[in-house]
Amino acid sequence: MSKANVVVVGAGGVGVVSSLSMYHAGKCELSMVVRSDYDHVLSEGYTIDSCDYGEVRGWRPHNVYRDVEEASKSGKFFDYIVITTKNIPDGPRSSTMPVLCKPFLESNSNIDPDRLTSIVLIQNGIDIEKELITTLKPEDYNNYVVLSGVEIVGSTKVGKAHIKHVGTDNLSIGAFDPDDKRAIESAKKFAVIYDAGDKNHVEFDERVRYSRWKKLLYNAAINTTTAIVGLDVPRTIEFGYEDHTKSALFLPAMHDIVNIAASEGIVIEEKFIDFFVNISAKRMFTPSMCVDVQKGQLMELEVILGNPLKVAKQNGVETPTLTFLYNILTIIQNKLKEQNGLLKFDEKTCSIIH
Amino acid sequence: MSKANVVVVGAGGVGVVSSLSMYHAGKCELSMVVRSDYDHVLSEGYTIDSCDYGEVRGWRPHNVYRDVEEASKSGKFFDYIVITTKNIPDGPRSSTMPVLCKPFLESNSNIDPDRLTSIVLIQNGIDIEKELITTLKPEDYNNYVVLSGVEIVGSTKVGKAHIKHVGTDNLSIGAFDPDDKRAIESAKKFAVIYDAGDKNHVEFDERVRYSRWKKLLYNAAINTTTAIVGLDVPRTIEFGYEDHTKSALFLPAMHDIVNIAASEGIVIEEKFIDFFVNISAKRMFTPSMCVDVQKGQLMELEVILGNPLKVAKQNGVETPTLTFLYNILTIIQNKLKEQNGLLKFDEKTCSIIH
Repeated sequence: MSKANVVVVGAGGVGVVSSLSMYHAGKCELSMVVRSDYDHVLSEGYTIDSCDYGEVRGWRPHNVYRDVEEASKSGKFFDYIVITTKNIPDGPRSSTMPVLCKPFLESNSNIDPDRLTSIVLIQNGIDIEKELITTLKPEDYNNYVVLSGVEIVGSTKVGKAHIKHVGTDNLSIGAFDPDDKRAIESAKKFAVIYDAGDKNHVEFDERVRYSRWKKLLYNAAINTTTAIVGLDVPRTIEFGYEDHTKSALFLPAMHDIVNIAASEGIVIEEKFIDFFVNISAKRMFTPSMCVDVQKGQLMELEVILGNPLKVAKQNGVETPTLTFLYNILTIIQNKLKEQNGLLKFDEKTCSIIH
Repeated sequence: MSKANVVVVGAGGVGVVSSLSMYHAGKCELSMVVRSDYDHVLSEGYTIDSCDYGEVRGWRPHNVYRDVEEASKSGKFFDYIVITTKNIPDGPRSSTMPVLCKPFLESNSNIDPDRLTSIVLIQNGIDIEKELITTLKPEDYNNYVVLSGVEIVGSTKVGKAHIKHVGTDNLSIGAFDPDDKRAIESAKKFAVIYDAGDKNHVEFDERVRYSRWKKLLYNAAINTTTAIVGLDVPRTIEFGYEDHTKSALFLPAMHDIVNIAASEGIVIEEKFIDFFVNISAKRMFTPSMCVDVQKGQLMELEVILGNPLKVAKQNGVETPTLTFLYNILTIIQNKLKEQNGLLKFDEKTCSIIH
């Protein structure tokens, strides 16, 4: 059998390092959908200053496409559609998961209706697969499966097709549905494809939902708070009243997450709370939602806070701190939407124009 | 007896309209301390587009001083020292109440140790008189008294010595200490001096603390929230998740204030909660703390939230919403302090430099 065909959608820090890992591993034909940097990547390739791959200059994946439409019309069957964009279901429709994935599922169905397609969501948050599955019913296409990727990597896009990669790529890959044998098998195959030896770490994740709740400890508590105050993590902690950033914001927000997870029977160990608070206190770092606000971009608010709060509501879990953060951040998200022309406010009637 | 001598310190929207009211009333010799606009006021006077005084052009008070030092060296005894600056006890020391008032108390003592001095604080918040009284003990000067001014006025400084005055000046004046007969008498005298007939409203306030808690309903709940999200009041309400800006932020914050006031035996009627929420929903207005953040200036955080929370702590009152707002705003206040060079943060050690 020929090599697997992989297409990566989303060419930010995570997408490019993931692509480089798979290219380096040499076990797939690697395509990328590169929107804003397309011309630059074609002519010059990528510049990647990498802690693991060295000074990479002029690197290109096997195929580069301008957008999802073009990639889906390439005549290739993509076994793995790897999405590394931000997941913002309340953002522009053109960037939502169903809209990004549909052209691939249709073209794959046309090329070979019996071959399995795996969509890999390397994204933050909980319940991120649901919008996809309810909008594009797997039985209507070729019974695709959705895989969960939780990636921890220090990499940032610092310029046109220029990536700074400072922390080794760690990927946990598994099936959102723990009872879906095909998905599990596909995730294990992907782990092999992704494995670039000593350049990265990849492991098959048997407990996807556990891993996602665990990562939410950080994102729901720390990422959110920094987005409200507009500061890196150490300043957010040190600028607080006495020790209240930790004791009255981070810790209770994390306990809210622990309680929601517990309502689903998932036990997140307390030690991870201390771990996340301690690693963040003395490391200069500005989390993604804070960066989004600073850049005037929408935040991944719904997958990081909105979805956990829906689970909390369903299961009757009290979440005072997360609810407060969500109430504040929803206002800020709508402010960003207005700035981006996605929402109109009429100052005469003092109401949103629908 | 000659006319009372009044000096107004603080030449923003409130200070200038208050000065104009007293000038118009004609019952005092009116001096102003005008810092940044001093030269302009001397040469051109004030431009005031006023809903009550019309198109005022080239207006000047009887005397203009460049700063508090200069005014206190004028040889005049000031019967009323009216402070309309922002009250930011955690801000630059040179702008704190004791530092602003001390030169006047000293010069007044030298001129006539037996004549009463009244300091009138036309400022937001609760317990704003305490810093003054504990730092400058009244018995060390000429037994000065401190009066409380709660002013509701629509006026903004829109340019150099240029004020836009859109809502009639309403002043409640009383004694912080309800048992101090001299202070009460002085407040009643000031009400007469301030009364400009049909151009403004002034009333003697028998229940200063009640009035201040009542005004805090608005400032502790609405002013604070808009400062966090950086939006006018209608957007802050309409951009919220469902009705949560009102139901989960404004109302519980106001109930926290009601509960703190109740712990001191002061009953704030529920109807004022609805009143403040309803008047703000459909009126385009950006409250002062939000304006401060937008301009990169320190907020009146301590007198609006810090002091109420101290009372709550003393009296064992739970204040979940106000505490949350305070925890967030303290971080933002310190961010503003860093931007203004009042605080230094060492990114190497991730700590504030003391």
